[in-house]
Amino acid sequence: MTEILRREPHVIASGVSLLADAAASQGARVTRVDWAPPMAGTDGDLAAVLADPWRHAANQEAVARMLAVRATLVDVVPAGPALGLARGEFLHAGPPIDWDRASGPLRGALAGAAVFEGLADDPGQSSAAGLGIASLDSCHHHGAVGPMAGVISPSMWLFVLEDPADGRRAFCSLNEGLGKVLRYGAYSADVMERLRWMSDVLGPLLQAAVRRHGPVDVTAILAQMVQMGDEAHNRNRAGTLMLLRDLLPPMAESGFAASDVADAARFMGGNDHFFLNLAMPACKLALDAARGVPGSTMVVAMARNGTDFGIQVSGTGDTWFTAPALVPQGLFLPGYGIADANPDIGDSAITETAGLGGFAMAAAPAIVRLVGGTVASALASTERMYEITLAEHPVFAIPALGFRGTPTGIDVTLVVRTGILPQINTGMAGKVAGTGQVGAGLVTPPPQVFPAALAALASCA
Amino acid sequence: MTEILRREPHVIASGVSLLADAAASQGARVTRVDWAPPMAGTDGDLAAVLADPWRHAANQEAVARMLAVRATLVDVVPAGPALGLARGEFLHAGPPIDWDRASGPLRGALAGAAVFEGLADDPGQSSAAGLGIASLDSCHHHGAVGPMAGVISPSMWLFVLEDPADGRRAFCSLNEGLGKVLRYGAYSADVMERLRWMSDVLGPLLQAAVRRHGPVDVTAILAQMVQMGDEAHNRNRAGTLMLLRDLLPPMAESGFAASDVADAARFMGGNDHFFLNLAMPACKLALDAARGVPGSTMVVAMARNGTDFGIQVSGTGDTWFTAPALVPQGLFLPGYGIADANPDIGDSAITETAGLGGFAMAAAPAIVRLVGGTVASALASTERMYEITLAEHPVFAIPALGFRGTPTGIDVTLVVRTGILPQINTGMAGKVAGTGQVGAGLVTPPPQVFPAALAALASCA
Repeated sequence: MTEILRREPHVIASGVSLLADAAASQGARVTRVDWAPPMAGTDGDLAAVLADPWRHAANQEAVARMLAVRATLVDVVPAGPALGLARGEFLHAGPPIDWDRASGPLRGALAGAAVFEGLADDPGQSSAAGLGIASLDSCHHHGAVGPMAGVISPSMWLFVLEDPADGRRAFCSLNEGLGKVLRYGAYSADVMERLRWMSDVLGPLLQAAVRRHGPVDVTAILAQMVQMGDEAHNRNRAGTLMLLRDLLPPMAESGFAASDVADAARFMGGNDHFFLNLAMPACKLALDAARGVPGSTMVVAMARNGTDFGIQVSGTGDTWFTAPALVPQGLFLPGYGIADANPDIGDSAITETAGLGGFAMAAAPAIVRLVGGTVASALASTERMYEITLAEHPVFAIPALGFRGTPTGIDVTLVVRTGILPQINTGMAGKVAGTGQVGAGLVTPPPQVFPAALAALASCA
Repeated sequence: MTEILRREPHVIASGVSLLADAAASQGARVTRVDWAPPMAGTDGDLAAVLADPWRHAANQEAVARMLAVRATLVDVVPAGPALGLARGEFLHAGPPIDWDRASGPLRGALAGAAVFEGLADDPGQSSAAGLGIASLDSCHHHGAVGPMAGVISPSMWLFVLEDPADGRRAFCSLNEGLGKVLRYGAYSADVMERLRWMSDVLGPLLQAAVRRHGPVDVTAILAQMVQMGDEAHNRNRAGTLMLLRDLLPPMAESGFAASDVADAARFMGGNDHFFLNLAMPACKLALDAARGVPGSTMVVAMARNGTDFGIQVSGTGDTWFTAPALVPQGLFLPGYGIADANPDIGDSAITETAGLGGFAMAAAPAIVRLVGGTVASALASTERMYEITLAEHPVFAIPALGFRGTPTGIDVTLVVRTGILPQINTGMAGKVAGTGQVGAGLVTPPPQVFPAALAALASCA
């Protein structure tokens, strides 16, 4: 004791800064540690799940399965036959929802899709029945993902991704570009015209090109993108260019009219987000491989329908843990502000779930000009995500971090234990149906989905 | 004095570390400052040039002219008529040199070009006369630049870059790819076959595409590249893809056979360095605008012919200041080592002269896997170059440095004053004619060219 009193005091402080500030102001040596209690009310569930002797091996298995997946683009096909969708059947992003609880942008996209399918003349209809919508289901339930509203109807064309190791497949719509587009809830005449051209020309031309080319290694393109300033959610510029590089020779040789080839090349090359719709199903394919490992606490899906944010976890089957989606913070297009923004929407958070997007922002510092923040905050986002993930992705190496792999595989127990929430970057849709995109920004899941998932895991442990 | 003795000593140390180390080892507080004397023997010239009252304004003028240039790709044409080259007339990289002093790779490239032009049958000929070479001159003397050996002969096709503000032009050959290629001194049958295809198909097809497209904004592509992990000397991956994006639609619509369009797209897309031959003349065009400003100490060209390294300075007209080129340090292709490497060669150091290449490595951390070093050393290279440059380039913004512009406009007085040499990254040619590329690495100019230029500046000051 006398020995302690003889030495200079060294204060170790955690939690609120009040005590640390007081000691520091009196000249004491203070070390602040970044410790916080677990999320409220989770002590019992956390103890139960952390005590599960199978947890570690189960998570290793889930991670290994996810990292082993190689996603290749093998075909481009209409959604109806590919997904078994009949006339009037529609898919949407996020956990399941019915028309009555659907947000403006989801209703707008469904209305536009109904007009596109010839089921309705007036997208202003205010009921599912009025639009001829016979059924609604989540894309995720059909091996598919869709950005923003994520509406898929039978006449739309889809990318088909396949893991050559086991033949499993994942699907995603073709990207329409930015601004006034269906996936942001817009349905004006130019939106309809673009959708028709995509089904009549772009889809068939890409089908011919992909079939002529053979499988395109999407995972390899993702790996290169991370070396080229993309994070594969809101920056897909290099990815889009590499896809163009691979597909343009077979497009030229496809036998399609030179003007169609040139139009398609201009459309794809003029839309830096075109590759997003390949990044998303590649992530879906990887994460689907990690589903259903008993005892695994790894998140295998994060998705939003514009009303609810839902997660699925490897060890709890197909259960969705949902809570009201938050509104992103970020930068707005001219004429719009926070009052115009719909809550978080889209299946695109599958990129963050797989270690890209917000988790890979250190690889894409230029993204701060789109979603807000600073280069330092982009680096800090990635650094923080290592605290809640199970692995460093061996294929997605971040140059600025000395080629460290991106943080991958969100662990529910680490989120609950630290209170650190997954960082998602995202586009923002206008909350009024028909508006389109209003901005882009940063968002997290609503915190309560993680304690809910933990409780379900505890009941199995 | 007693006051000083009462305080804790604080040693400020510069130069060799011996004194600082001794003080530090005795527990003294030591601050090391990064100060070094100017390069040996330069005191008088440095004083004279630094005292020139016109220097500051002259350098501002040179920098402003350089930064105002917008480089656009306006045409693709055969070199003979474009540069006024008659049969048997050849250009090469670097300062002027004759056959007798030419290095292996330059001789190899000249021999290959002579065979390509039909002037000789056997590239193994050991004299200029035997190869039918009537004259040799520096590319730089004809508004042109060429990577590595930089040989331009009348039948080769050139990119034509133009500044729309004043119609000035710069020229560069088309990039052949990596490995066994003419510019690295190789001349085997496949090298000849590729050159013939480039003249018969690629050149005319690109000419049709560029003329149909209209001017391609090369400066804008350079600005984007720096956001996408390229430094535009040894990483041109994103730039090549953006050029493809812009030119493929008009290539498809050019009326050329679909198989030629597809072959050209595969050739360009399969060679990450294709855009280098647009980056180089864009830099040449910018720096040529800064030539001939009396009193300016800004470097307007750095170039190597494989034997000599030469620089030109704005305030000293067309004089070359030369010294023997150094051998780069770096990574070798399998089967080669330092003993196989020719001294530094090529006009491509024009990129560093304009604030790209080695000066922009902080924007391209992945380049260390090609040229050696670490991500930290790439960042440090760029940081160090701010010490010897006059400006931060407003268009080339480095995301990892919070969008700071690249260090641009090398000042002879700052190089001599600090002893910090410009950092160049480069490919390495085999020193035996016919070998081709053996590696890539880092190099600097031989130091003595800067005191030589300073002496010339002093004689005008």
